[in-house]
Amino acid sequence: MFEAAELGRKISKEDYEKALPRLRKKLLEAQFALTSADFPVIIIIEGVDNVSKGEVINTLNEWLDTRGLSVHAFGAKSDEEAERPRFWRYWRTLPSKGRIAVMTGAWYSGSLIQGVFGQIDDTSFDRHMKRIHLLENTLAMNGALILKYWLHISKSEQTKRFKKLEKHPVQRWQVSKHDKKLLESYSQYKKFAERAIRLTDYAITPWQIIEAENARYRHLTIAQHLLSSISQRLKSGPVQPLKALTQADIEPFLEAPDNVLTVLDGLDLSTDISKTTYQKELVKLQQKLNQLSWKAYHQKRSVVVVFEGWDAAGKGGAIRRITQAVDARISQVISIAAPTDEEKSHHYLWRFWRHIPRAGHVTIYDRSWYGRVLVERVEGFAKDFEWQRAYREINDFEEQLCEHGILVVKFWLHIDPDEQLRRFKEREHIPYKRHKITDEDWRNRDKWSAYEAAVNDMVIRTSTDYAPWNLVPANSKRYARLCVLKTLCEQLEASLTPPEDRKKSSNS
Amino acid sequence: MFEAAELGRKISKEDYEKALPRLRKKLLEAQFALTSADFPVIIIIEGVDNVSKGEVINTLNEWLDTRGLSVHAFGAKSDEEAERPRFWRYWRTLPSKGRIAVMTGAWYSGSLIQGVFGQIDDTSFDRHMKRIHLLENTLAMNGALILKYWLHISKSEQTKRFKKLEKHPVQRWQVSKHDKKLLESYSQYKKFAERAIRLTDYAITPWQIIEAENARYRHLTIAQHLLSSISQRLKSGPVQPLKALTQADIEPFLEAPDNVLTVLDGLDLSTDISKTTYQKELVKLQQKLNQLSWKAYHQKRSVVVVFEGWDAAGKGGAIRRITQAVDARISQVISIAAPTDEEKSHHYLWRFWRHIPRAGHVTIYDRSWYGRVLVERVEGFAKDFEWQRAYREINDFEEQLCEHGILVVKFWLHIDPDEQLRRFKEREHIPYKRHKITDEDWRNRDKWSAYEAAVNDMVIRTSTDYAPWNLVPANSKRYARLCVLKTLCEQLEASLTPPEDRKKSSNS
Repeated sequence: MFEAAELGRKISKEDYEKALPRLRKKLLEAQFALTSADFPVIIIIEGVDNVSKGEVINTLNEWLDTRGLSVHAFGAKSDEEAERPRFWRYWRTLPSKGRIAVMTGAWYSGSLIQGVFGQIDDTSFDRHMKRIHLLENTLAMNGALILKYWLHISKSEQTKRFKKLEKHPVQRWQVSKHDKKLLESYSQYKKFAERAIRLTDYAITPWQIIEAENARYRHLTIAQHLLSSISQRLKSGPVQPLKALTQADIEPFLEAPDNVLTVLDGLDLSTDISKTTYQKELVKLQQKLNQLSWKAYHQKRSVVVVFEGWDAAGKGGAIRRITQAVDARISQVISIAAPTDEEKSHHYLWRFWRHIPRAGHVTIYDRSWYGRVLVERVEGFAKDFEWQRAYREINDFEEQLCEHGILVVKFWLHIDPDEQLRRFKEREHIPYKRHKITDEDWRNRDKWSAYEAAVNDMVIRTSTDYAPWNLVPANSKRYARLCVLKTLCEQLEASLTPPEDRKKSSNS
Repeated sequence: MFEAAELGRKISKEDYEKALPRLRKKLLEAQFALTSADFPVIIIIEGVDNVSKGEVINTLNEWLDTRGLSVHAFGAKSDEEAERPRFWRYWRTLPSKGRIAVMTGAWYSGSLIQGVFGQIDDTSFDRHMKRIHLLENTLAMNGALILKYWLHISKSEQTKRFKKLEKHPVQRWQVSKHDKKLLESYSQYKKFAERAIRLTDYAITPWQIIEAENARYRHLTIAQHLLSSISQRLKSGPVQPLKALTQADIEPFLEAPDNVLTVLDGLDLSTDISKTTYQKELVKLQQKLNQLSWKAYHQKRSVVVVFEGWDAAGKGGAIRRITQAVDARISQVISIAAPTDEEKSHHYLWRFWRHIPRAGHVTIYDRSWYGRVLVERVEGFAKDFEWQRAYREINDFEEQLCEHGILVVKFWLHIDPDEQLRRFKEREHIPYKRHKITDEDWRNRDKWSAYEAAVNDMVIRTSTDYAPWNLVPANSKRYARLCVLKTLCEQLEASLTPPEDRKKSSNS
């Protein structure tokens, strides 16, 4: 795989200096055009040779306008990063639209090092690469231009360079112990590098293997590729290539036939519960939840609770019964309203990644990422190919949470149209509830069957063994609240005494 | 101080339920009006009684629209939080304009607990309170409506309540060991509570002491005060009260007389350095900086480097000489461009707090918070009273960094108008540098003397013993770069072997 990058390509100083002024000017012009485009550029720099990587970063820093550029060289994880799923630290540094981020030591490096030094087996390594592909695919499908440069240098050249540097009285510091250890395992490194490239080299996120020996060749090649990629993308426009790709890349989407029983039809909405029983049970369940939540805190088991449901289904009331029981110091409610500008200029999952709880904490989402396949689908805010691929993106997202050991509990609060009408009317008569009823709510009611189809698809496509949906009959508020508390307690309790196999997978 | 909050005030269930619907409706209306106003609301809930605090939070959660509300109950610090100055965790959770944040266990609690249990002496406690006042004042002067409620309950009532709760078979969990320990130290707690209130009770950020015994009285009183405060503020408009306050609150501002020598006039701009000497020195200094930066990393000594200077003074080039030497994994360059919408909807310091480095890391700001007293002052983007109070805000901000043990190194790169003109013309002839010259740069040149006065004021007012300005003659780029590296190395080295007194103050 690297043979073509060991040909000894060079560019003379003369040619280099002739090409440079025009190239740098063009690069800046492209970057300037990018600032008003609606996609970000992510540049990944990988390879065994840290000196070359550093020089490439310095060069990009010099050639590009730093106001639109961030450089992220990932080193040791902070505790907050270690407490979240593996990709959280990358999500928090992703560039917004119009900006360029250069990333090194990012999502590939950790797995490569683990592979080379035998800390993970081949199966785990392959799973990491699969996960990386899904991440890159998710970002690229959303518009991000991902440019991946693998800087290659042969073993003999790397050895030669180290020797030369080490002899230099003041440049010795450029060679670390870790670099030398890696050089000793060069053949292992090469094996895993090839495997990484092979498993993540897709048409939408291709690798460029760059012969890194000659600095002038290396820098000119990368700059030219960067320039032509950005220019081409600016010309072709943001939607065209993605539309084309989605059709080839996404599985065919099964439209739910009309007038057919949905998963919601199986729910018995008639169950009610007396006020006395309710209050007795409520205190008991809240007490239990309080104890379990502290136990989870000490075991560093985080919990993500998702609430979706019809308008007026009682999400707010159910959530308050949870927050009354769980200490506010270890819990957080995220009410999903209109996204901020920063949120809008990222992938739609970015704003949810932001709030992933620290170890042992509970985050409750009042509405969630499922908006993509519910309101955005029905109201046409998301294009077909956008919400259709969202099921896979969401499943992947939740799988990452679960693999990290986070418990994901999802509730759909279900009422029927009659009960909703009753509650709407009731709300109109209570002064402080009137604001909860808007024209939009009445309009949504008219689209009941469209929403029903969307809910049905959502439940079918995103109820996974690791994060199943809990459908809650909610015509009786009392019944629904107890049901939510009970389910949450049960699932939390079960997650605190994990069977052997679950333990294993959550550590990987 | 608390006598007026032990009068046994009560509200009957009947009166409560009569008042409630109208109050809740009005509250929601006020919150709705707030969403398009240009100030945030910060609600601080303090007091010994955790049960009351929890109930107040639950009630606000129920009465307000949760989409515009966040609740932050601060518990144990995360490592990332512990690695930054004490207020960093609060800055990261401050509400943006139009939103309400309820904070409990926030900036007061830690100091109170430390005071009560003798972990800090009275002097330190008072210093903490002074710092809190400055924080609240900074936010309030910028428009934030800060509402502080101290929930008071007498010792006998608290004892009674605990006994009752502990007898209850399922509500026992509401009383923690920590609560009981605090009750035992009630008189100590009261002493520090009074002191805290006294030292932070200002006209712009006044305390409300709330008799907390009766839940109905407590909730109605807080809700009514909240409602009237927000309504009044919405009516009076955002600027009026702040303008009035600044005049009383800020020290008289000394205008620099025209045509007078400034601090910049003392600089000798004629020094140059040969290319050979430069390159020899550069490598040596970069090597030294590399070693020092790793040493600082291992000692967890963070560094904040600030670059300001005339257009074309060579900030970018000087910064690159630093980033070539410091490993990208432990450093970050923040180029200050136009703020994002999220940044705009916070205090102007918020965007800089965001990037405060983790322990042992280096953050380089390419332009900085000093924009407030430079470009914003000269161009009139900030009102007089805004940039005039900024000196104090900035000194306070940097003092917090230094107290936390962060080294702050500030550079002003100075060139004269002739040299600037030469560089502007040169840039116009180099294709990839032409973009660096805009009409704005030429306009700024015309305001040289206004900028000079602003720089002079800035240096005089913000050159402190803990964060002095380094004025760098930069007509010779080579000289300036070496000077920057040398200064940085010296100050970093000095901070790594601190004299006894500095060690002591950085630990407080």
